Amino acid sequence: MAQTLTEFDTIAAISTPIGEGGISIVRMSGEDAVKIANQVFKGADLTKVPTHTIHYGHIIDPDTNKTIDEAMVTVLRAPKTFTREDIIEINCHGGIVVTNHVLQLLLAHGARMADPGEFTKRAFVNGRIDLTQAESVMDIVRAKTDKARQVAVGQLAGGLMHKIRAMRKEILDTLANVEVNIDYPEYDADQVTAKQMADTSKNVIQKIDRLLKTAQEGTILRNGLATAIVGRPNVGKSSLLNYLTQSDKAIVTDVAGTTRDTLEEYISVNSVPLKLIDTAGIHHTDDKVEKIGVERSQKALKQADLVLLLLDGSQELTDEDKTLLKETENKKRIIILNKMDLGQKLTAKGMHDSTGSEVVSTSILKETNLDELEDLIKKMFFSGITNSNDQIMVTNQRQAGLLAKAKKQLQDVVKAVEDGVPVDIAQIDFNGAWDTLGEITGDSAPDELVNALFSQFCLGK
Amino acid sequence: MAQTLTEFDTIAAISTPIGEGGISIVRMSGEDAVKIANQVFKGADLTKVPTHTIHYGHIIDPDTNKTIDEAMVTVLRAPKTFTREDIIEINCHGGIVVTNHVLQLLLAHGARMADPGEFTKRAFVNGRIDLTQAESVMDIVRAKTDKARQVAVGQLAGGLMHKIRAMRKEILDTLANVEVNIDYPEYDADQVTAKQMADTSKNVIQKIDRLLKTAQEGTILRNGLATAIVGRPNVGKSSLLNYLTQSDKAIVTDVAGTTRDTLEEYISVNSVPLKLIDTAGIHHTDDKVEKIGVERSQKALKQADLVLLLLDGSQELTDEDKTLLKETENKKRIIILNKMDLGQKLTAKGMHDSTGSEVVSTSILKETNLDELEDLIKKMFFSGITNSNDQIMVTNQRQAGLLAKAKKQLQDVVKAVEDGVPVDIAQIDFNGAWDTLGEITGDSAPDELVNALFSQFCLGK
Repeated sequence: MAQTLTEFDTIAAISTPIGEGGISIVRMSGEDAVKIANQVFKGADLTKVPTHTIHYGHIIDPDTNKTIDEAMVTVLRAPKTFTREDIIEINCHGGIVVTNHVLQLLLAHGARMADPGEFTKRAFVNGRIDLTQAESVMDIVRAKTDKARQVAVGQLAGGLMHKIRAMRKEILDTLANVEVNIDYPEYDADQVTAKQMADTSKNVIQKIDRLLKTAQEGTILRNGLATAIVGRPNVGKSSLLNYLTQSDKAIVTDVAGTTRDTLEEYISVNSVPLKLIDTAGIHHTDDKVEKIGVERSQKALKQADLVLLLLDGSQELTDEDKTLLKETENKKRIIILNKMDLGQKLTAKGMHDSTGSEVVSTSILKETNLDELEDLIKKMFFSGITNSNDQIMVTNQRQAGLLAKAKKQLQDVVKAVEDGVPVDIAQIDFNGAWDTLGEITGDSAPDELVNALFSQFCLGK
Repeated sequence: MAQTLTEFDTIAAISTPIGEGGISIVRMSGEDAVKIANQVFKGADLTKVPTHTIHYGHIIDPDTNKTIDEAMVTVLRAPKTFTREDIIEINCHGGIVVTNHVLQLLLAHGARMADPGEFTKRAFVNGRIDLTQAESVMDIVRAKTDKARQVAVGQLAGGLMHKIRAMRKEILDTLANVEVNIDYPEYDADQVTAKQMADTSKNVIQKIDRLLKTAQEGTILRNGLATAIVGRPNVGKSSLLNYLTQSDKAIVTDVAGTTRDTLEEYISVNSVPLKLIDTAGIHHTDDKVEKIGVERSQKALKQADLVLLLLDGSQELTDEDKTLLKETENKKRIIILNKMDLGQKLTAKGMHDSTGSEVVSTSILKETNLDELEDLIKKMFFSGITNSNDQIMVTNQRQAGLLAKAKKQLQDVVKAVEDGVPVDIAQIDFNGAWDTLGEITGDSAPDELVNALFSQFCLGK
C-alpha cells in the first residue's frame, strides 16, 4: 500500500560529495527549512523572498555572532520542489570543515540529520516519483558509463513505471470483469472469465519476458562486469591494463568511504562497463618480482564475472600457465595469446580447440587485434539489446526478482484455468501478480521494503 | 600593476568535488554563459528570466534531442556575482558520468574548460577581491580544523587586506610629503623628509613584525603539522593512533587525485592540526610483524615537523630504542614513556635530563596523562596567539616572504637615513617597500605571479 501523506520534520544533509571542491551544498527539506535557514543567514529575509530565488550573504552562528562562511542560499517553496516540501540549499565554499560546520549549525537550530536517501524517499512518499524512478536517481549517481546513465535517465523519466503500470491496468481491467461475472453468475460466465484471466496472464507474461530479457544486460550496465586480468609475470598484464585505462575510454575511479582497499577502477569497453578487480596488484607487481600471493589471486578469480587470461603466445605453455588454465576453466573467460609479434608457438585455433574458450591472438605492445578483444567482450555478454536507443531496461535484482515472481503467479493462473480450477481460486494468484507488480513501482510496496530500499542510498540524496 | 578589465571568454568547470553525491554543480562564467546554457536547457527561456532565480528542467543535447539529466539551473547576471560576470550554475544529479557529460555539452556549445582557479582569478582581475582574499578562498576549502576555517573566513572578509593597505597608505602619505619637499628644496627640507621616511619605516616595521609573529602558527593552522609517530614494535603506536583518531577529535581524510599513496589523515589536537605521516604503515604493521623498512621510516622522519617517539617506560632501553633516540635527536620531538601502568623503569625526569627533550609518561591503554601530551603539543608550537578570536594571521609563505622583504627594505631606509644618504637614494627602498606590500594584496603584483598563484587552485574554483 502506498504510504499516505504525513507530517514530516525538517531534515538536513550535505548533498555534494565530500572532498575539496569549489562549492558544497547543504540541503534542508521540511516545514521549518526556511525558518531555520533564516536564523543563521545574514543577507536577506528568507521568509519574505519569492520562491526559486537565490541570495548572497553569510552564514552566521547567531549565538556567537561569528561568520561561518560566505554563502549563496536558494529558497524553493513547496509544492514545486524535489520533495514537494520547502527546500533550502546553502551553497558554501567547498571543503570538509566548513561544510560540516554549516550542517551542524542547522542541526543545532531545529533540523534533524537526514537518513540516507531520505530526500528521495520524501519525493516518493509525497507522490512525485515511483520506486523505479527513485532507484534510477541512485543509478544516475552511480552510473559508470554513458550508456548506463542513459538507461537510468530513461527510467527516471518514468519509462519502466509506465510499462509496469500498463500491465497492472490490464490485470485490473480483467479483474473488474471477473468481479462482474462473479456477481452475476447467471450467465454461466465462469468459463468466460477464466478464459479472460488466462488470456490476460499470457499477454502480460509476454511483456514480462521482454523486460526480463533486458535484466542481465541492465544489471551489468548498472554494476559493471567484475573482470580479473590474470597471467604469470611478464606476460603483459600491466600493458593490457594501461592500454585499457589510458586510451580514450572513460575511467572512473571510486573511493568508497575512506578505506583504501575499496578503490575501484572502471573502464568502458564498447559500452560494457568493466569493473577491474585487484588492479593495484597488477600495477605494483607485474614486470617486477611477482608479489601477489596465491590467496589474493584466487580471491580475485572468485569475484570475477569475466577472466582475461593472458598467455605468452610466442612460447610454449609453462606449468604456471597450465595451472591458471585449470583454475579458470569454469569461468567465463577470454584467453589472450599475447606477444604475437614475437612469433606464435600457440595458435588461437589450437587453444580454442583444446579449451573451448574464446581465444584471441594479440600484440598489446603493437596494439594489434585489441579491437577484436573488445568486440569479443561485448559479444559474450550483450545480445545487442543495448544498441537500441532509449531502451527501457530492468537494471536491478529487486525489479527482476519481482518480475519473475509475477510471471510465476501468472503462469499458475494459466495452469489453474487449464486444470479447471474454480475461478475464485485461480483469481488469488491473479490478484497476487497485480500486487507483485505494484511492489516494483511502490504502488503496493510494504513500508519495510520502502525503508530498506532507501537505506541503500547515499547521504544527502 | 593591477590588471585592467579585459574581454573574457566563457569558462566552464565542475565545481563540486568528484564522487558519488546527491548533487553536482557545473558552473559557467562569461559573456555567453546564459546563451550557452539556454541552448542545452529545456524548461525555461534563460535569456528572459530575472537574475538570481533558479529553474527546473532538463539538460538536452540539442544535436540528438536526447535528455542528459534532470537539472536545476541558476541564472546570476553581472555584476552582482562572484566573478562580476554572468554566471550559470547547473545543479545536476551527482555522479561522475552525468556531470562530465553536462560539462562536455557546454564545451561543445562554446564554453572553454576553465583553468584551475580561473573563476576566483576573474573575481580578482575584475576587482571583487584582492589576492589575500583569493588565497583565503582556497584556505577555506582546504581547512583541516575549525580554527583554520575561522582564520580563513576572517581573511576572506578582508582583514589582512585592510591591514596591508593601511601600511601602504602610511608609506604613500609620507611619499607625497617627500615629493613636495623635493620639489621645494628651499626649506632645507631634506632633513625633515628623511626623518619622516625613517619614522614611517619604523612604524610600519612594527606592524609587519606583529603580522610576522603570526606566520608560524598561521602556516601550521593552514597546512597542518607533519607528525611522525615512531617507536619499535609493540610499544603502543597503533594504540596512540587509535586514541588520537577515534576520539571526538575531527578526523579529516583527504585523497588527492586518484593515487592511493597520497591519502592523508588529519587530527585536531587542541586546535593544532596534525597531519599524520605514514599512518598506513602503523595501521598495518604494529603489533604484528614489523614490515616498515628502514628506508620508509627514515623518509617519514625527514618530512616530520614533529616526532612523537614512543618508548616502553616499563622496560630498559633496547638497542632499537637507542637508535631511534639518536635518529630523532635533531627533530622537534616529544618522548612518550608508555606503559606506565606496568611500572616505570624509565622516568620522565631522567629522560628529559639525558635528552633535553620534552617527555611525558603515559598509559595509552588506560588513557592516563594523554591530556598532558596534547597540552605539550600545543605548547611546543603555539604561543597563544591563536587563542584570541578573529585574529588576523599570515597563513602562507608567500605572504610571509613578502612581508619579510618589505621589512628589510624599510630597515634599509632607516639605516640610509641614519647614514646621511641623500633622500632620493633612500627613497628607492621606501618605494620598493610600497611595491612589495602591494604584491601581497595584488595591487602591484606582476601577471606571472598572479598566474602562478591561481594555478595552485583546484579546478572549478
